[in-house]
Amino acid sequence: MAAVAVVQGASRGLGLAFCRHILLHRPSAALVATCRRPSGAADLGALSARHPGRVTVLQLDVGRQEDVRAAADAVRQAFGRADLVVNCSATLHPSGKGETSLRDVSAEDVMATLTTNSVGPLLMAKYFCPLLQRGGGKFGQQHPEKAKQHSGILINMTARVGSIGDNVLGGWYSYRMSKAALNMATKNLSIELGRNRQKVVCVSLHPGTVDTDLSRPYHKNVPKNKLFSADYSVQCLMSIIDRLNIDKTGKAYAWDGSEIPW
Amino acid sequence: MAAVAVVQGASRGLGLAFCRHILLHRPSAALVATCRRPSGAADLGALSARHPGRVTVLQLDVGRQEDVRAAADAVRQAFGRADLVVNCSATLHPSGKGETSLRDVSAEDVMATLTTNSVGPLLMAKYFCPLLQRGGGKFGQQHPEKAKQHSGILINMTARVGSIGDNVLGGWYSYRMSKAALNMATKNLSIELGRNRQKVVCVSLHPGTVDTDLSRPYHKNVPKNKLFSADYSVQCLMSIIDRLNIDKTGKAYAWDGSEIPW
Repeated sequence: MAAVAVVQGASRGLGLAFCRHILLHRPSAALVATCRRPSGAADLGALSARHPGRVTVLQLDVGRQEDVRAAADAVRQAFGRADLVVNCSATLHPSGKGETSLRDVSAEDVMATLTTNSVGPLLMAKYFCPLLQRGGGKFGQQHPEKAKQHSGILINMTARVGSIGDNVLGGWYSYRMSKAALNMATKNLSIELGRNRQKVVCVSLHPGTVDTDLSRPYHKNVPKNKLFSADYSVQCLMSIIDRLNIDKTGKAYAWDGSEIPW
Repeated sequence: MAAVAVVQGASRGLGLAFCRHILLHRPSAALVATCRRPSGAADLGALSARHPGRVTVLQLDVGRQEDVRAAADAVRQAFGRADLVVNCSATLHPSGKGETSLRDVSAEDVMATLTTNSVGPLLMAKYFCPLLQRGGGKFGQQHPEKAKQHSGILINMTARVGSIGDNVLGGWYSYRMSKAALNMATKNLSIELGRNRQKVVCVSLHPGTVDTDLSRPYHKNVPKNKLFSADYSVQCLMSIIDRLNIDKTGKAYAWDGSEIPW
C-alpha cells in the first residue's frame, strides 16, 4: 500500500515546495495537490507533468465547504485513505499587508483572513480526517507501542506571530488572530483524534520567514540568512514530520524543531 | 469629572450584572449600556428606570461595524471620553450547544461565533479606544509612577476554555477558537495601547461558570458551588478591575485573580 499525501494550497509557495519535496524524496507516494484554480497553476502543472501518473490535482477553495467535501470525496474514491494532509493556504491580509495599528482594522478583512487561515484548515480536518483514520501511518515515525501507533498526520501551517505568549510587537491583528484560532483548532483536533483507536497526529508548524508572496512586502526587514527559500523551509519541516508520533501531537513546532508557546 | 463606563452586551447575563454593579457601587459614574435590541431589553429598561439620569442605552450589534461606530460617536458627543469599556456579548454556538466533535463543525457556525466573540470586541476596541485614551483613569488602581498611569481600561470577556494550553477536553471548536482569537486581540491591543502616552489597560477576564443563557445547557454537569450567579461573578471581576494598572495589562485573569495561560 503506497503512501498518500494531500497538499492543500499547492499552487505556489510552501505548498508547491511540499509537492516537490514529496515527489522527489518519497518516490512511492501518491500526491494529491489542491488549489483554488488548477487552470492557472502553471508551476504545479509543470511539476505534475514531470512526474507522470503520480499527481492528482484537485480544485479546492478552503473558503467553500462544498469544495472541501468534494475533494475529500474524490480522494476517497481514488485512494480510500490518506497518510498525510498539509494545510498550506494562508493569507496575511486581503490587502497583502498586515495592519500596523488598530486604525487599519476592518471587520471584513478580519473575517476574510479567518476564513482562509482558521476555518479552512478546520474544514479540511472535518472532511479529510475520516481518510487519515484509514491511513497506513506511512509518514512520521511509528511509536514503538502498537496501541499508540498513528494512521495519519494532519499539519496546520501556523506562524510564530500566531503565538500569544511570544507576541511582543503587536500589529497584524487579522493574521495573528487567525493563527491563534488555528492553533486552538490544532490542539482541539489533537485531543479528539488522539482518543480514537485510529490515531491522527495533528500539529501546527512554523516555517520560518520564507520567500513567498505572503511575506514579500517585508523582505527588506529580514536578515539574508533568516529569509529561507520555500524548498529549504520544507526540507526542515519534513524532517520534523518524519519524526512525528502521537506523543508529539497537539503542539506547535518551528522549522528548527523547537516548540513554540501558545 | 465623573467616571464613564460602557458595558457592551448589557441586556442580560454578565453584562446586565456589570450594569447593576456599577450603578450600585459607583454612584457617581455615568453608565452607557449597549445591546442589540433595546426595545426588547426589559430588565435593562427597568434597571435604567430605577436609576434616573444615570443610564444611556444605545443600540449596538457587534456584528455590524456601523453600529459600533455610531455608538462610539454617540458616547463621544455625550461624554467626550470613557474610563471603562467591558465587552460582554458572546455566543457559545448558533445552536446554543458547542460542538462535541469534528462532525458537528460547520463553516457558517464557526464564522458566526467568530463574528460575535472575536471580531466584535476588536471593533469595539477600534472605535472606543480613542475615547478610552481621553478617559480620566477612573477605574483600576493608578500606578504610583505618573508616566505609567492609565486613562482607560478595556475588558474582553474570555473563558478558560479559550486557553490553548489549558485545553484537555477538546470539543466546542467554534467557541474555543473564537476565545483564543480574542485573547490574541487582547494581547495585541495591550501592546499597541500600552505604548501611547495615554495608556489603556487591556485584559481578558474569565468569569467562571456563570448561570446565564450561554451556559444553561451545561448546568447539570456543574457542581452547585461552582455555578456562580452573574452578580457574584461580576463582584469578583470588578475586584480584579479595581486593582488593574498598566503592569497587569495584556493578560488573562480568572474570577479569583489567578492568571490563565494562553
